[in-house]
Parts: sequence; C-alpha cells; structure tokens
Amino acid sequence: MWKLLVHKLLNKANIKVGKDIIVHDKSAYKDMITKGTLGFGESYMYKKWDAPSLDVLISKILDARIKNLKWLGFLPNANLWIKSKFFNLQNRKYAPDLSETHYNAGNHLFKSFLDPNMIYTCGYFKDTNSLEQAQLNKIKIIGKKLNLQPGEKVLDIGCGWGGTARIISEMFDVVVTGVSDAKEMITYANEHNASKKVNFINTDYRNIKGKFNKIFNVGFLEAVGPKNFRSFMEQVNDLLLDNGIFLTHTIGGKKSVNSGDPWLDKYIFPHGVLPSKKQIEKAVKDLFDIRDFEAFGKYYETTLNQWSVNLNKNWNTIKDQFENPEIFKRMMDFYLLSCKASFHTGVSDLWQYVFTKPSMVTDYSVFRMT
Amino acid sequence: MWKLLVHKLLNKANIKVGKDIIVHDKSAYKDMITKGTLGFGESYMYKKWDAPSLDVLISKILDARIKNLKWLGFLPNANLWIKSKFFNLQNRKYAPDLSETHYNAGNHLFKSFLDPNMIYTCGYFKDTNSLEQAQLNKIKIIGKKLNLQPGEKVLDIGCGWGGTARIISEMFDVVVTGVSDAKEMITYANEHNASKKVNFINTDYRNIKGKFNKIFNVGFLEAVGPKNFRSFMEQVNDLLLDNGIFLTHTIGGKKSVNSGDPWLDKYIFPHGVLPSKKQIEKAVKDLFDIRDFEAFGKYYETTLNQWSVNLNKNWNTIKDQFENPEIFKRMMDFYLLSCKASFHTGVSDLWQYVFTKPSMVTDYSVFRMT
Repeated sequence: MWKLLVHKLLNKANIKVGKDIIVHDKSAYKDMITKGTLGFGESYMYKKWDAPSLDVLISKILDARIKNLKWLGFLPNANLWIKSKFFNLQNRKYAPDLSETHYNAGNHLFKSFLDPNMIYTCGYFKDTNSLEQAQLNKIKIIGKKLNLQPGEKVLDIGCGWGGTARIISEMFDVVVTGVSDAKEMITYANEHNASKKVNFINTDYRNIKGKFNKIFNVGFLEAVGPKNFRSFMEQVNDLLLDNGIFLTHTIGGKKSVNSGDPWLDKYIFPHGVLPSKKQIEKAVKDLFDIRDFEAFGKYYETTLNQWSVNLNKNWNTIKDQFENPEIFKRMMDFYLLSCKASFHTGVSDLWQYVFTKPSMVTDYSVFRMT
Repeated sequence: MWKLLVHKLLNKANIKVGKDIIVHDKSAYKDMITKGTLGFGESYMYKKWDAPSLDVLISKILDARIKNLKWLGFLPNANLWIKSKFFNLQNRKYAPDLSETHYNAGNHLFKSFLDPNMIYTCGYFKDTNSLEQAQLNKIKIIGKKLNLQPGEKVLDIGCGWGGTARIISEMFDVVVTGVSDAKEMITYANEHNASKKVNFINTDYRNIKGKFNKIFNVGFLEAVGPKNFRSFMEQVNDLLLDNGIFLTHTIGGKKSVNSGDPWLDKYIFPHGVLPSKKQIEKAVKDLFDIRDFEAFGKYYETTLNQWSVNLNKNWNTIKDQFENPEIFKRMMDFYLLSCKASFHTGVSDLWQYVFTKPSMVTDYSVFRMT
C-alpha cells in the first residue's frame, strides 16, 4: 500500500523508480509517507534507498511541490509545529542545543569541505569558480555595503570560526568584535584568527553590550527564530550608533513559518528556521529602513556543490574519526545535496539586507558598488 | 486666531517667524490651517509669504511631522481622499489629465532645467557632480541590472521624451519600444531620439501588446495609482518573456496611501500617488520575485537641487512665454524645493526593484555590478 502510494506520487513528479531512485528496503515507503521529509532523509541515511543524482531527484520533488502537487512531506510535521507554537525554541534555555551539535561536530569535518578560511556561508561566485575567492568576494561586498572606514568599530554577530571577522578587519582596517555561543568555534577563532584588530567573545548574542559603527551577521538569522526577530532587531538598534549601518546576510524562504524542515532540524540545525521577507520587514518596522536588498541564492547552489565535491574528495582522510562513518557520510550527502536542490529550485534563496536607522536617512551613505 | 495657531505650530518646529518665514499677507495663516499643504503652497505661489531658504523651511516642517508633532497639512485632504476612495482616478477616462497638464506645459520649460538628454527622473550621483553624467550613470545601472544583451527587445513604459530609451539602446545595443500617453513628449521623442533601434508609441500603457526580453519603467509607477498596481503587474508579466527581467524605478513613501499631496496633485502631478513597499510587494505576489532592491533618495535631493539651480539660471530666457510668470515661477520653486525637502528628510525615497518570474528562478542572472 505504501509502495503504491509512493510510486504514484513519484510518477506525478516524473521520477522513475529503479532509475532515478532505487529502493533497497521496502520499509522506506512507509517512512516517506508517515514521516514526511524526516522519513525521506532518514531512510536515505540508513541506505534503504539510493539515487544516482540525489540533488536532481530532490530538485524534481521540490519542483513538483512548487507546482502544488500533493507530495512527500507536504504535510507539516505536526509534532514540531505544536512545539514551536507553544515554546520559544530559540530562547536562552534551548539555544545551546544548536551550537553543541552540528557546529561542534569536530572542526576536522568542516576543514574537509570548507575553504581554507573556514567560511561556512554562501560565497559570491561572480567572475570566479574558486570557493576561496568567492568567500573573499562575499566579505568584500559586505564591507563595501557597510561603507567601512578605517578605525571603525564593527560587530560580527554569529562569527563562526572567525575567518570573516579577521579578513574584513584586514581588508578595511577596522576593529571587529566577533561573537558566538559555540565554544569550539571561538576556541578555533582565537587560535587561528586572533589579531590586534579582532576580538572574539563566547557568549549568547543577547549578552552583547557596547556601541558600534557597523554591525553585520552572516548566516545567523536562521538560528535566531522568528519569535525573537523583533527583540533581536531592537538589540541591534541599541548596539548601533545613530549613523551606523547594519547588514543581514541570511537564507530566506517564501513562506512565513515558525519551524524548519524536520529532517534538517533533527540532524543538522536544531531549531533553525528560514525567515521570510515579511517576517524580517515586520521585525524592523520603525527601527530600521531597508536601504538595499540583494538576492543571490544561485550562488548558494554553487557553494553547496563545491562543499559536496570537497567532502567526497577528502572523505577517506577523515572517515575513521566517526563512529558510523557510512551513515554519517550519507547524512552529510543528504544535507548538502538537498540544500543544493532547494536553492536550485528557488525554494530557498540567499538575501542581503542593508539597514539604517530611520531618523538618520539624511546621513546615509551609498552602499552600491557600481 | 489663525495667526496665533500657526505661530504656535511653527514654534514647535523651531521655525522663527520674521526670519525663517516672512508673512506678507495675514490671510496666509487661514489658508495654511484650513487648506493644509494646498493652502501652504498656494499662499506661497501668490506671494502671501516668503522664505529665505524654502527647502530648509519645508525640511523643518517635515522633520517636525516625522516626530509626530501636530502640523500643517497633518489632516488629510478629505475631499481628495473621498474621491480616490470611490473613483479610480487613474483609469482610462481620467488618465489624460496627467499628460495634458504638467508634461505638456511646454518643452521649453523642461529644457531650461533638465540635462541635455531631457531625463526627468532621479540621477545617480556616484563619483560625479554633473547632472548629465548622473543621468547617464542611472541609465547604465538600469541596463546592467536588466543584464541587457545585444539584440534583445526592451520595453520602456512611460518613456518621457525618449532620452533614456535612445541612450540605453546605444549603450547596450538593444531594440527599445518607448511608450507614453503624453502626446507632446512622443512628438519630441520622435524628433530628437528616433533611430533604427528605437520606436516610440503614443498610447496608454494598457494598450501595449507583444513579448519583450526586458521591461523597465522609470518614474512611472507614481502615475499608475495603487488601485491599478495589480493589473499593471499582471500586464507586465504577460508582456515579459519567461526568462525576462523587469525593473521598476520609482519614488516611494513610507505609508500606503491612495492619494497624493493635495498641492502637488492640483498643480504638478494630477492623480500622482507615491507607492509604498507594501503596495508594490503585494501587487507582485506570485507574479514576480524581488531579486534586487536599492534605495537612493539622497540622489534625488541632489537632482532636484540642480534642476532648481538651472531653472533660476535660465528663467529670464523663458519667462516671457508664461501668462503669469511670477506666479508660475513661484509654483515651480515650491514644487522643486518642497520635493527636495521631502527627499532630504526621508519622507520620500527613490527605489529600484528588479523582478523575475518565480518559475524562472533557476535561470536568473546576477544583476549586481560588483
């Protein structure tokens, strides 16, 4: 029965069973129908099925979803939805979850697929195919949009392993404070990216004090949670000098939701939720004016593809460090390639917003690099 | 009584009577209170009062308004509001009003203050103080955001005197159709900007047929009217090839309204209404994705300032062509300087949106000129 239903759905999305998807264990069908995307991902991890091109397969599924066909995981995961409705999953009590899982999985994993500067966000692949150069481009663009001037005090909220903070401080001769609540990341940042001009602090963003000329966050809003957007924006407003500029670089989704994809939530980014434009714009009302907006999700497809290629190339050198290397590798493959498919189909996008305080509009600089 | 009230209000906005504003005729006070911005502008036109720096005076008024002080013209003009509530002022029956007044006022007027290419929209004053160069910059930016490729078919909705259409066709080697319902403008365009690659049509935008690779409108949405935004966007969607790009360059306001400033409505732009972000984003829902957004109202302050300086410089050479030259000149001064003040204070802004069709997200090009 499950098999028949799955075949029917796959058929509607133009997916050929035995060719585009090869099912090894029939219990995968039940997983898919009863557990949606969670069951789809888990049954892949446990090798109940394979696909010669996982990203192409998932793109077909997402395309079918866009066209409003009934589809796997089309039903929201009720359990997670109810949780997020009644609890604030990103409040201080829950926040450590995120940094204690994926980000602390071991820096050797991330070294194996990221660029040498360990930048774990979307690169900017304009006129380059090099991941390292694309990450430098992205950092340069952020500095230009922020109109960074020598000596300015800059805050990087959610600084990761500190590469962006160090590089932007060198590029623009500014003093950067990088903040993250992920302990292993800050340890790495202090070891590899410390300098006179960069200072790293291991704390929750809600504890940051001070005044800054410019503030940015790259790949951070996804972990803040829509319920906290307003208080986050209020805090940034407090931390920013009146003539300052604030840049947000975030993955975005078309619909306003309060919970993320159940599989990604469980295995990769606990409590991660993609913001919508509406949620962001509502959160900044009367606090900030939007001065500039750019969407370049296409470059995240390229970024994720390069990460996936790198991981495959270097997997043999790190696999012995994992307890269940095969399952872990399949989890990483499913993560990187399903996200790639999501950018490919436009289900997810990558946005950069530039904000200034409304009262300071007469003072604003021009952020475009024409 | 009116005098006392006006003095009290002026005082709240830090405006000194006798210094910042010199009242020649006490009936101006009644005009201001009973007719709001309409009375304020009209009493200036008829020389009931003067100001050594009209733009600074109006900026102070607007700043006071921003800070939520009760102020002149704070009350909406009920008559206009009721009209726009029950009638669609920009429908076909009413549309000729606009083009038959201000835009057909005589090209000699516009020649006296615009750049040599007669571009009647905001320039892009990056690395230049020249109005002509700023207009060329703006046109180049539009072409780059549209990712124009040689030979593409391009539609310019609301082409004015045709300068933008001709210049963009030369810069990017594209074939442009320019459309305007202002007869005198199209006559001028055919005389001065015609070429093998540019074609001008005198018609209402609702009559345009065909398919285009790229579509843009510069300073046009302000005349479309919020009630028509959805049907306008639907039409553009129809006219645009599936992998096309659409750019809107428009003045915008913070609040969603259905009618414009009463004075501007009566003397300069009949039925002109500044769109809000909310109105635009609602109008494109499911029709277009926003790929890029830029705000540069600061450059409109510079543009309007240069127009005002030019008009003053050249006024003596054209003034004899007007029936009531002094009143006409004061009307133009009030128009250019009150708009300048409006951009200076951030009450108005200048926006460029870049749109693509949602289904085509996998195909989109990158519009930024980094």
